[in-house]
Amino acid sequence: MNTSQQQLAEGILFTDEYQFTMAQMYFRLGLHEKPAQFDYFFRGCPDYGAHKAGFCVNAGLEWLLNWMQAARFRRPELECLRSQTGRAGTPVFSPDFLRWLEKAGNFDGLSMRAIPEGRVVHPNVPLAVVTGPLAAAQILETSLLNHLNYQTLIATKAARIRESGRGQLVIEFGTRRGHGKGVTAGARAALIGGADFSSNVGISHVLGLPPKGTHAHSMVQAFLALGMSELDAFRAFAETYPDDCVLLVDTIDSLGSGIPNAITVFEELKRKGHAPVGIRLDSGDLAHLSIEAVRMLNAAGFPETTIVLSNELDELSIWQIMTQIGQEAARNGLDADHIFRRLTYGVGTRLVTSAGDSALNGVYKLVALRQDSKWMPAMKLSDSPSKIPNPGDKRVWRLYDRRNKATADLVSTKDETPSEMPEIVLRHMTEASLQRTLHSKDLLAIEPLLEDILQEGRRKSPSPAIEEIRARRRSDMERLDPGVKRLMNPHIYHVSLSEKMWQMKQKLIAAMRAGLPHSEHQMTS
Amino acid sequence: MNTSQQQLAEGILFTDEYQFTMAQMYFRLGLHEKPAQFDYFFRGCPDYGAHKAGFCVNAGLEWLLNWMQAARFRRPELECLRSQTGRAGTPVFSPDFLRWLEKAGNFDGLSMRAIPEGRVVHPNVPLAVVTGPLAAAQILETSLLNHLNYQTLIATKAARIRESGRGQLVIEFGTRRGHGKGVTAGARAALIGGADFSSNVGISHVLGLPPKGTHAHSMVQAFLALGMSELDAFRAFAETYPDDCVLLVDTIDSLGSGIPNAITVFEELKRKGHAPVGIRLDSGDLAHLSIEAVRMLNAAGFPETTIVLSNELDELSIWQIMTQIGQEAARNGLDADHIFRRLTYGVGTRLVTSAGDSALNGVYKLVALRQDSKWMPAMKLSDSPSKIPNPGDKRVWRLYDRRNKATADLVSTKDETPSEMPEIVLRHMTEASLQRTLHSKDLLAIEPLLEDILQEGRRKSPSPAIEEIRARRRSDMERLDPGVKRLMNPHIYHVSLSEKMWQMKQKLIAAMRAGLPHSEHQMTS
Repeated sequence: MNTSQQQLAEGILFTDEYQFTMAQMYFRLGLHEKPAQFDYFFRGCPDYGAHKAGFCVNAGLEWLLNWMQAARFRRPELECLRSQTGRAGTPVFSPDFLRWLEKAGNFDGLSMRAIPEGRVVHPNVPLAVVTGPLAAAQILETSLLNHLNYQTLIATKAARIRESGRGQLVIEFGTRRGHGKGVTAGARAALIGGADFSSNVGISHVLGLPPKGTHAHSMVQAFLALGMSELDAFRAFAETYPDDCVLLVDTIDSLGSGIPNAITVFEELKRKGHAPVGIRLDSGDLAHLSIEAVRMLNAAGFPETTIVLSNELDELSIWQIMTQIGQEAARNGLDADHIFRRLTYGVGTRLVTSAGDSALNGVYKLVALRQDSKWMPAMKLSDSPSKIPNPGDKRVWRLYDRRNKATADLVSTKDETPSEMPEIVLRHMTEASLQRTLHSKDLLAIEPLLEDILQEGRRKSPSPAIEEIRARRRSDMERLDPGVKRLMNPHIYHVSLSEKMWQMKQKLIAAMRAGLPHSEHQMTS
Repeated sequence: MNTSQQQLAEGILFTDEYQFTMAQMYFRLGLHEKPAQFDYFFRGCPDYGAHKAGFCVNAGLEWLLNWMQAARFRRPELECLRSQTGRAGTPVFSPDFLRWLEKAGNFDGLSMRAIPEGRVVHPNVPLAVVTGPLAAAQILETSLLNHLNYQTLIATKAARIRESGRGQLVIEFGTRRGHGKGVTAGARAALIGGADFSSNVGISHVLGLPPKGTHAHSMVQAFLALGMSELDAFRAFAETYPDDCVLLVDTIDSLGSGIPNAITVFEELKRKGHAPVGIRLDSGDLAHLSIEAVRMLNAAGFPETTIVLSNELDELSIWQIMTQIGQEAARNGLDADHIFRRLTYGVGTRLVTSAGDSALNGVYKLVALRQDSKWMPAMKLSDSPSKIPNPGDKRVWRLYDRRNKATADLVSTKDETPSEMPEIVLRHMTEASLQRTLHSKDLLAIEPLLEDILQEGRRKSPSPAIEEIRARRRSDMERLDPGVKRLMNPHIYHVSLSEKMWQMKQKLIAAMRAGLPHSEHQMTS
């Protein structure tokens, strides 16, 4: 793709064909500017097969908002649509519809409430609520899902990896095997969810973070091919970067060649007054090699040097490495916690592609339409009750128990305020028999989660810096029960309906099954 | 990201930090313009867990070449690098190195031989061979891997899906859950590998293909919310698109409501002289529903209408659907082949994220360096023999048997011409005891696979249209043994070394293990 092709592919045509065909049909019927509400939510946390997430970390919103503000029908976009013909050979899109698109087919009329990026989020809770003209809100669907699904997927994986590494430094290394240009979004999401740094130079600079890295095997190979040695390569690298020297030790043999050569170079650096940073291990039994490396480095007088681990790492392999070190360190005369504190995790492919579950199942569903100043709830039945969305305009509340841990998310109708209720009934999303009652006095706080983000295309508050987003994640992770954060078989976090919301939904389902029009059962207020 | 941030993130800084730190070290030592050769290859076909690919379809090269030609150090890129400081607070990159980057830190000095896009390819065969100044070839690594790994991964998945669907129409639907902007590359790769069309409007227009689509559940929901019916929705859609009408029938109940309503609308279309196109099924037992839909549509006088299937499809679920239809059609008084011919597969998430194996394990390895007019092979040992790359400059040949099926890929030294050998010894890549001998008279053809693509930054031939790339895929798929194409437990395609290549590699491994410098064992010729 050249630059103009890329603009075409990534602008307002970055959507599915059916959004435009539906929009034109609404235009024909005069429904295109009818106020509509769509909810974005996901139906289940990522399930990696052998393990499953108990929560997600919300991400992608800021880039979606940037995209929405820039997306416009320019001449090239209109020309594309104008050129499309159907089976009969006639144009798919008519001139009057294209004129309307040019004038009003952007997102300036849309408003949005959303849960901010970095917040811990759960299934079946609306994370973004879009209101505005039906056609524009419909056209937005594909790009909204693309932006929010992927970044939330990766921020979640990064949070799990950080938990698994017990807060040790995590560096994102995934550009080489991630999915095309999507890796810039992936790196950003990883940095929101739990990675400290990225090796990707461009996106690091865009986000105001220093990119990080060591060196590749090819550097040592090049020296060998030229008749020199691994030691020569290490020495040359150390001379160029005396205060930032991390040496990759496994090109020939980590224990037999790489680490001894690294120690020789570290001693030379030390004599010249520099502090060597550390080594990187990229193959073999990383737990065993970490222990051996610490022993050798300690014996040589380098008890503080870092050990960077890499090679297809993810939350499970990090957990395994730390467990093995925990079991074997003492037998080797070492303190496991001391080793842990020296480890840095370089995590690439399995982080930015969310290996095991490569997509978040987020959806964007029409939940209400305004007819003559009244909002009518929109429903979709399904043979699977868990796939029936929650209709209408809603509020989302997070309830914190006396330990200041989040105990449930509550989805209510828009006119309820749980903090004013002495007792809060939490209904299971689909099972009529499952409910529990919380007493206000047992709750430390009740927090509304949705914030006003966009008012008819205008930002309600400035774009947050990545540090602010990361602070939200840290704060939410602290207030999440350890059982919900568990890597395998996590405790199921409660997402509940208020009693009023539950009754309204049941009434609508019954009406729809009976074939009654929604208008007989319009939402209260 | 705004536009200038996107340019920064996706230009020449779309690489890993260590490429620049290594390049600066080469610059310091005067090695930066030493001619080097790197090979790109992958080590194994995608392994989806329950099933595994027996081949790959090569893709991504054209977009890599476009990126290389556009990637430049402009002022913003140089400013980023200039601003980086190390632990001691001093700049990481020195002014003289940055001046060299500005002048020569692009890819205009690189040459490339490669296997063209669309060709069927196999593990451990160099798919792209880059030669040129060491520093520039090193800086290219990350972006080359990003472009080629992802598109090859997806073209491969698409080819499997096409095989599974026995050549029925496949439409790519993955933008909503793919990985950020990477989905444009994913859609292109899907269209190369086996998809006929994409629902993504922008990328379809860039590639010169019409985007395809039906409509969403939200359209029917909107009508219901406004007090109208599914039939009203279908009728309105049919009036807008009388010659292109595909109706989604599962918003309420496919058999009880959607299909009968669709038939009513089809009858109205027919009376007005239009041919209805078909229906889409998006939930439930798609095999059973397809049979029932065909029966109902046939009975109503629509024996030619298409049935589009969607809902988390991939090669296994399509195989399962077709098997079930094959078993149940006759019992329902229908011809299975007739049903198959009416099916179209809408494949999204699992295609563009390569569900089950979300990354191709492609690597980019230094294989030779020129020292005083002699090319020195570069090696990397490993405890795992399969991870030792094949050193030096090589040639790749595809051998076709008398059935005109590809029987093996042969990797030879650069001075061998297998077509001139009466007997060709094929050595296993790593196992000394495994070899077979082919006689030239038993071969229909011996085809060289690598083509000259780039000569010091200049294209050797114009960029091919997507139809040309697809034609290569079709031709190669026809010449691939059915056993290799099998969805599960495929026959292992032979990738072999020539006798001379094998001997050279063994000599180098022995020398390296003995600690001898490579110069004593430089490559012949």
